[in-house]
Amino acid sequence: MPGLLLKALKTPLELADYDLGELKPGYAKVALKAAALNHRDYWITQGLYPGIELPKVLGSDGAGVVVEVGQADDESWLDQEVIINPGSDWGTNEAAQSDQFTILGMPHHGTFSTHIHVPIEAMRAKPKHLSWEEAAALPLSGVTAFRATMSQGQLRPGEKVLVSGIGGGVATLALQFAVAVGAEVAVTSSSEAKLARAKELGAIAGFNYREEGWTKKAAESFGSPNLIIDSAAGKGYTNLVAIAAPGGRIVNYGATTGAPEKLDMFKLFWKQLKLIGSTMGSPADFRGMLNLVEKHEIRPVIDQVFSLAQGNEALARMEQGEQFGKIVLRI
Amino acid sequence: MPGLLLKALKTPLELADYDLGELKPGYAKVALKAAALNHRDYWITQGLYPGIELPKVLGSDGAGVVVEVGQADDESWLDQEVIINPGSDWGTNEAAQSDQFTILGMPHHGTFSTHIHVPIEAMRAKPKHLSWEEAAALPLSGVTAFRATMSQGQLRPGEKVLVSGIGGGVATLALQFAVAVGAEVAVTSSSEAKLARAKELGAIAGFNYREEGWTKKAAESFGSPNLIIDSAAGKGYTNLVAIAAPGGRIVNYGATTGAPEKLDMFKLFWKQLKLIGSTMGSPADFRGMLNLVEKHEIRPVIDQVFSLAQGNEALARMEQGEQFGKIVLRI
Repeated sequence: MPGLLLKALKTPLELADYDLGELKPGYAKVALKAAALNHRDYWITQGLYPGIELPKVLGSDGAGVVVEVGQADDESWLDQEVIINPGSDWGTNEAAQSDQFTILGMPHHGTFSTHIHVPIEAMRAKPKHLSWEEAAALPLSGVTAFRATMSQGQLRPGEKVLVSGIGGGVATLALQFAVAVGAEVAVTSSSEAKLARAKELGAIAGFNYREEGWTKKAAESFGSPNLIIDSAAGKGYTNLVAIAAPGGRIVNYGATTGAPEKLDMFKLFWKQLKLIGSTMGSPADFRGMLNLVEKHEIRPVIDQVFSLAQGNEALARMEQGEQFGKIVLRI
Repeated sequence: MPGLLLKALKTPLELADYDLGELKPGYAKVALKAAALNHRDYWITQGLYPGIELPKVLGSDGAGVVVEVGQADDESWLDQEVIINPGSDWGTNEAAQSDQFTILGMPHHGTFSTHIHVPIEAMRAKPKHLSWEEAAALPLSGVTAFRATMSQGQLRPGEKVLVSGIGGGVATLALQFAVAVGAEVAVTSSSEAKLARAKELGAIAGFNYREEGWTKKAAESFGSPNLIIDSAAGKGYTNLVAIAAPGGRIVNYGATTGAPEKLDMFKLFWKQLKLIGSTMGSPADFRGMLNLVEKHEIRPVIDQVFSLAQGNEALARMEQGEQFGKIVLRI
């Protein structure tokens, strides 16, 4: 069947036939209706990911219809509309994934394809209020945002939240989740357009982190955040430690601008801060995320929809970093 | 009445009469039986503390007998044997102390004295299994160790705990608390003698952090700690981040060797670590600490006992850093 194959690093994806192999017991074959891009997919094309095996169909996010099951016991899944948890083998420790944890799209073939084989236990019913494109936009960003904000960040209603670098899939869903549970949310970006979009989604304040003294302005007009959701780290991290409320939590689900210059340990212990790492999420996080999305009818923001054949244009859109929300492939 | 007054920075304490002022309603006058030293007292003598007002009687830790109350309502406290919570005005947020939070011994007169005025709400019944010296050794170290290990560190039975820099009052009680709740505890020190003492208190392993490759040895023979209790930070912090188990917590109640050289953010999010600041504790922490101490009949380790008149010798003992456990003044 056809899928977008990465055959060699730093080459365009190629729409080509490949072999999904035998459908094993405990697995289902899903005819994908839509898939979505993550930064992970781009990093893999650049070789910036451990354990790359080529050729491989990329893609961690997808939604579609079950067309075949590997054993008779699972026939009730046939024709079901499903959304796929991209994570497998999290393990038994809610606090962290096991060494066996993998994500769809490497080392197993992913969702940039007409079909995929997935473990039965990875499938959940597609939330009814979502289109196929919206459903496909949800899994990896959704579970990552849920774990960062709720499971690791322990957000409570009425708290102040700052989501840095708004526009990315995780950051945008973290904003939406925080608004849904009754938090007051501010965002940062270097783009005034993205700050404006975030306010449409419920942010009550937006700050341009390129502006000198933005933290002072934020402290005065918004207050000190109880929870900060960040994926940049780097030089700006010192500002986050400074602006966090006493007892505040700073959750990082990435560190795209590298290590912080210096960690102010005095502030850490005197302000009783918690600096928390978070990545992807467990099956419990995935279920919790879907419950939250269904309860509040949250819709992930779609930046742009491409066809499967336009996969390289979709990757180029991600590389530019201009997107607000998810880049989706309609299949 | 007589107390050990600090009249000017970097001068010896002076045993002299001073005025405790009027006993206000809501307060009690306690005839102290013993007091204990903390690093805080030494730092104040060196001017290394904010908001120093002189002359002042130092001392945060004390235990004694109530001899007078400020209002008739509190007469049931008369003649009671009490231990004193050194913290006042924590505030309503369990996650962090308020700006009004103070500790006995600066800005209010402290426990290096025959008598002290304390708020009624700061007093708790002295645990019956403790001597006066042991009771006096408990409050500030105990509440700090309890908050770091239990409230912030969320230690659970069966987990592996590493307590760095064993020998100090907080570290030693953290070791004892962790052993009491059923954790497996390892310690570090640069002193073989202190490592040996820690094993007598229940540590199952001890590592000399001056030894090249101690983390490798620790990982092999002890395993990866779920919880690390540290007050050094500095260069050694990188080792702690590296050795922590996936999902592990590193709690710092100080940073005596300064800021870490570099924070490995990739390890932070990939291992889902929590870097947690902690200092002193709330009234709830103080009560929780006393409950734990009474339930398991924990006795704080006494390094050496001096008389009130030997206060400067006691401070010199602390300055040397050779102590294991608390330095106490018998009054």
